[in-house]
Amino acid sequence: MSEAHRTLEGWYALHDVRSIDWRAWKAFAPKEQEEAVAEAEAFFRRAASVDDAPEGSSGVYALLGHKGDLMILHLRPKMDDLLRLEVEFAQTALAQVTKRTYSYVSVTELGQYTSEEEKARTPQEEAFIARRLKPVIPDMPYVSFYPMSKKRDGDDNWYSLPMEERRTLMYAHGAIGRAYRGEVQQMITGSMGYDDWEWGVTLYAVDALPIKKIVQEMRFDEASARYGLFGSFYFGLRIEPETLSDMMAGRLR
Amino acid sequence: MSEAHRTLEGWYALHDVRSIDWRAWKAFAPKEQEEAVAEAEAFFRRAASVDDAPEGSSGVYALLGHKGDLMILHLRPKMDDLLRLEVEFAQTALAQVTKRTYSYVSVTELGQYTSEEEKARTPQEEAFIARRLKPVIPDMPYVSFYPMSKKRDGDDNWYSLPMEERRTLMYAHGAIGRAYRGEVQQMITGSMGYDDWEWGVTLYAVDALPIKKIVQEMRFDEASARYGLFGSFYFGLRIEPETLSDMMAGRLR
Amino acid sequence: MSEAHRTLEGWYALHDVRSIDWRAWKAFAPKEQEEAVAEAEAFFRRAASVDDAPEGSSGVYALLGHKGDLMILHLRPKMDDLLRLEVEFAQTALAQVTKRTYSYVSVTELGQYTSEEEKARTPQEEAFIARRLKPVIPDMPYVSFYPMSKKRDGDDNWYSLPMEERRTLMYAHGAIGRAYRGEVQQMITGSMGYDDWEWGVTLYAVDALPIKKIVQEMRFDEASARYGLFGSFYFGLRIEPETLSDMMAGRLR
Amino acid sequence: MSEAHRTLEGWYALHDVRSIDWRAWKAFAPKEQEEAVAEAEAFFRRAASVDDAPEGSSGVYALLGHKGDLMILHLRPKMDDLLRLEVEFAQTALAQVTKRTYSYVSVTELGQYTSEEEKARTPQEEAFIARRLKPVIPDMPYVSFYPMSKKRDGDDNWYSLPMEERRTLMYAHGAIGRAYRGEVQQMITGSMGYDDWEWGVTLYAVDALPIKKIVQEMRFDEASARYGLFGSFYFGLRIEPETLSDMMAGRLR
Amino acid sequence: MSEAHRTLEGWYALHDVRSIDWRAWKAFAPKEQEEAVAEAEAFFRRAASVDDAPEGSSGVYALLGHKGDLMILHLRPKMDDLLRLEVEFAQTALAQVTKRTYSYVSVTELGQYTSEEEKARTPQEEAFIARRLKPVIPDMPYVSFYPMSKKRDGDDNWYSLPMEERRTLMYAHGAIGRAYRGEVQQMITGSMGYDDWEWGVTLYAVDALPIKKIVQEMRFDEASARYGLFGSFYFGLRIEPETLSDMMAGRLR
Repeated sequence: MSEAHRTLEGWYALHDVRSIDWRAWKAFAPKEQEEAVAEAEAFFRRAASVDDAPEGSSGVYALLGHKGDLMILHLRPKMDDLLRLEVEFAQTALAQVTKRTYSYVSVTELGQYTSEEEKARTPQEEAFIARRLKPVIPDMPYVSFYPMSKKRDGDDNWYSLPMEERRTLMYAHGAIGRAYRGEVQQMITGSMGYDDWEWGVTLYAVDALPIKKIVQEMRFDEASARYGLFGSFYFGLRIEPETLSDMMAGRLR
Repeated sequence: MSEAHRTLEGWYALHDVRSIDWRAWKAFAPKEQEEAVAEAEAFFRRAASVDDAPEGSSGVYALLGHKGDLMILHLRPKMDDLLRLEVEFAQTALAQVTKRTYSYVSVTELGQYTSEEEKARTPQEEAFIARRLKPVIPDMPYVSFYPMSKKRDGDDNWYSLPMEERRTLMYAHGAIGRAYRGEVQQMITGSMGYDDWEWGVTLYAVDALPIKKIVQEMRFDEASARYGLFGSFYFGLRIEPETLSDMMAGRLR
Repeated sequence: MSEAHRTLEGWYALHDVRSIDWRAWKAFAPKEQEEAVAEAEAFFRRAASVDDAPEGSSGVYALLGHKGDLMILHLRPKMDDLLRLEVEFAQTALAQVTKRTYSYVSVTELGQYTSEEEKARTPQEEAFIARRLKPVIPDMPYVSFYPMSKKRDGDDNWYSLPMEERRTLMYAHGAIGRAYRGEVQQMITGSMGYDDWEWGVTLYAVDALPIKKIVQEMRFDEASARYGLFGSFYFGLRIEPETLSDMMAGRLR
Repeated sequence: MSEAHRTLEGWYALHDVRSIDWRAWKAFAPKEQEEAVAEAEAFFRRAASVDDAPEGSSGVYALLGHKGDLMILHLRPKMDDLLRLEVEFAQTALAQVTKRTYSYVSVTELGQYTSEEEKARTPQEEAFIARRLKPVIPDMPYVSFYPMSKKRDGDDNWYSLPMEERRTLMYAHGAIGRAYRGEVQQMITGSMGYDDWEWGVTLYAVDALPIKKIVQEMRFDEASARYGLFGSFYFGLRIEPETLSDMMAGRLR
Repeated sequence: MSEAHRTLEGWYALHDVRSIDWRAWKAFAPKEQEEAVAEAEAFFRRAASVDDAPEGSSGVYALLGHKGDLMILHLRPKMDDLLRLEVEFAQTALAQVTKRTYSYVSVTELGQYTSEEEKARTPQEEAFIARRLKPVIPDMPYVSFYPMSKKRDGDDNWYSLPMEERRTLMYAHGAIGRAYRGEVQQMITGSMGYDDWEWGVTLYAVDALPIKKIVQEMRFDEASARYGLFGSFYFGLRIEPETLSDMMAGRLR
């Protein structure tokens, strides 16, 4: 048996993907639409201000394509907080005209592979860890979310590799990520025991193209090329609560 | 042909996962909602008190994410008992606003791999076996359910391994579980002939994090790393019958 | 090219799995429910008495879990008979509140692997063959249905094995089945050209547990361990036509 | 790179599989049902008489099981012809109570593997080719349709085999087909670039059993055993336009 | 780690596949149908004239089969442009009677494998690149869209091949494409980080048959035979905005 990797965990995450039933929405009277938007805006604002828990972060994205129209993302200290937000949103009129097409339940995770991370930490390192485990959703317009696992298939079995080899592979992998600093910010969440894949990857970016570039470059990295398994990709643009009414009226700028 | 493993079986289990059709629920008049909650509460209470069979245990969980909102879990001495509960619940008003998104049919199972288990049992061992085969659902707030099978793929074929090797692997696997005693309680149910995977794993825990930690640690264990195949994971929080009205009103605490 | 196995075929089989739309059912007025039950009962009775064809057998099962609530099983001499029954049932009021979630189209099959079977048959052997090819659905309360195929994957390719090796493997496999005589009765139907898997297996049993035990024991047998691929499992309890009204009212005993 | 196989193509084919929404059908008034049947009958008759294109062939089948109730098959010289028929049928009242559950878009194909086929053709050969590429749907009561591809998996890669080896394998494969002449008639359509699999196989037969026998025998042939990948199987019985009203009334003979 | 391939990117692409709910459409009053067609026609015309962005191209296709009836294709300089078009179309009456069954989010991509492409470019080369990255949808009647990835499976791992070998394979692959010049025009879009596969392939053609021929020939090419993985294929015919009313009335010429 190979030595298990040690991890640090922080906030729990709910990625809540919904498609809009436009037929049902258009059946609302104008006043009902207005009230539904106002109610949802208020919910998104309250969530973003985290008035429901000691700390956390929330954001909303408009997705492209048929897999979903909205992705609501909540980060909170407890699973209970996420459930409360989910159940509260379910009561809104906007939720009635959406269908949940995907979701992901996970927790921010920092893998303890590199030997530096095991040594006594400097204040800077502590700050780095805190930013990774309690990541405020950055003010960047583009997002890509996808779940992934490591392969366990014949000779390509990540979980049978010696810890030292996994560490080396992950360090090389991390180096690609670091080269995109400023352009793409990564949030890694672990989901073993919580959801169907082993990790969720949320990429925040200042432009759409670097998201493609980083995923493409990493695909050639051995950690991905040989061991990576990827689920569906959800790509979208951040929307502010006040943009919701424009989106629901088909007038996004 | 490799020698088949021997097992002991106890109560039959039905994991009944349902998503709530909130639109239909919100279309109920307040009085209908009240009655529906009261009726469902009464059903959950009766099931929890096992007034329908000589023995057993029942519990209800609120799940996170789009795969389901409720998981109703029944353990009973006979399959007939489970069917009766399923058909009875189908009549309730609450059931009318839910859609069954998943379910699992299985029976509690104790694998007879270790040589100790084959020897004449002490009273303590008998008590241990009884607790495993007739497991009262513990009063722990978090749950994770997932089905799994053992791989039969080229050189990685669990069912072609000699019994002795399987025994060794399972013993190591069990050792991880034992290290989480007090934090995570496992319920293993077998489902060959009953459902699509070979086993169901139900993890009960006092906190959400140990569920991730135990699944993660076990993933590196050879029994899982090389031979484990996992289905979907359902994660949730226990709700008491009296909490149902709060949940349905979007006011979970 | 490996020599194809020869088979004998008998009655055609339709496994018709349906889930009940309880919301639609509850929307029926009491009188409509009564009439719907009476009409369906009459259909099931007529089918069981095989008044629609020279010979055959029919039965109805209540399934556990979300994959279906009813499994209607018809065995008839011709595919035309099965289609006629399917189309006739589609007209009933009960059918209107069900959704077909699965079905299986096949024909009873007896593999001619063992050399005994190829020799001149004794009257006892003829009777055995007739019972296998024209199997009256036994009066046993539990059923498990699952489709299966043989693997064709790299070195594990059933269809490239020499006939002699397949014969030996199937004989060992059959020996397990024979050990459960009296407890579990197997019905093997072939479906190449008719449905998505190569065979359907229908296990009838006097208790639920032997179904698990036989499937589990066979999983270790080389024919299954190395070459078996399994689809979904449907487990249920036989219901008599007169039990239908109780089931639809949520009062199964 | 292996030499690509050359093919001849003829008529384009649309296999249009639909399930009937019996609840919606039963909600039609008797007069609406009558008109809907008359309209659909007229459509099927016109299609069968090919009044919409210079040449072609059309037929309708009643399928068994939940995967579909009707398979409408059109063969026409151009894709435009198929689209026109599809869009025209979509307007009928009968189409409103059906749901398209599957379809297949392809073109009749004759593989040029055998050396004979490459030589100057005799008039008989020309006639053979014409029958294969412009196949009038035969007046045979049973049909089985399934899509298939050739494997490209490790050492089992059809597309890396030398042309000569593929030719030998296909010749042996064809020999099985020829042994069923008179009992089973095959129509091979290619679908690369048009649909999800590489070929569609449509088997027409005078009885149901030979369809099973030919598929079973071919499964042991190396071209299938080692290289064949099969999709879903759709099995049914031919219905004449005038039989439609009986089928919709649940009175198939 | 193998060297990642470098790519040039241009316009973003949205392939938006929808099936028409004919029952809902037929429930529209004639005047509503007229208005819905006029509104959709106007939208498609505006999109085709690219009045919503500095540059781009749009087109509409009628698809064959059950996977979708319409494919709306937009190419624009920014992801924001695509989202705006998607949200605007969602407001139309026609959109209310369609269901999104598939979609693909990607960006035009030109792989920089060949050494020529790396050298200082001639004006002709610059023009070639511009045509590939900003491809005006050609006036050709047939289209085939399919997503694809490169295999990462045991010894068949594209992403572990040396750059030089990938370059050679892609050059041979490209040569097949060039042989179809004038008959088939290819548009390659990359989708890593945006959608579930790695590339989208859109083939435009003057006839239906060359689409089959090119896909078939490429299947034998090592880049595809050994490393290609293909998703679903969507095949259709271009429709002009003014043809929409005929299509919706079932009268396509």
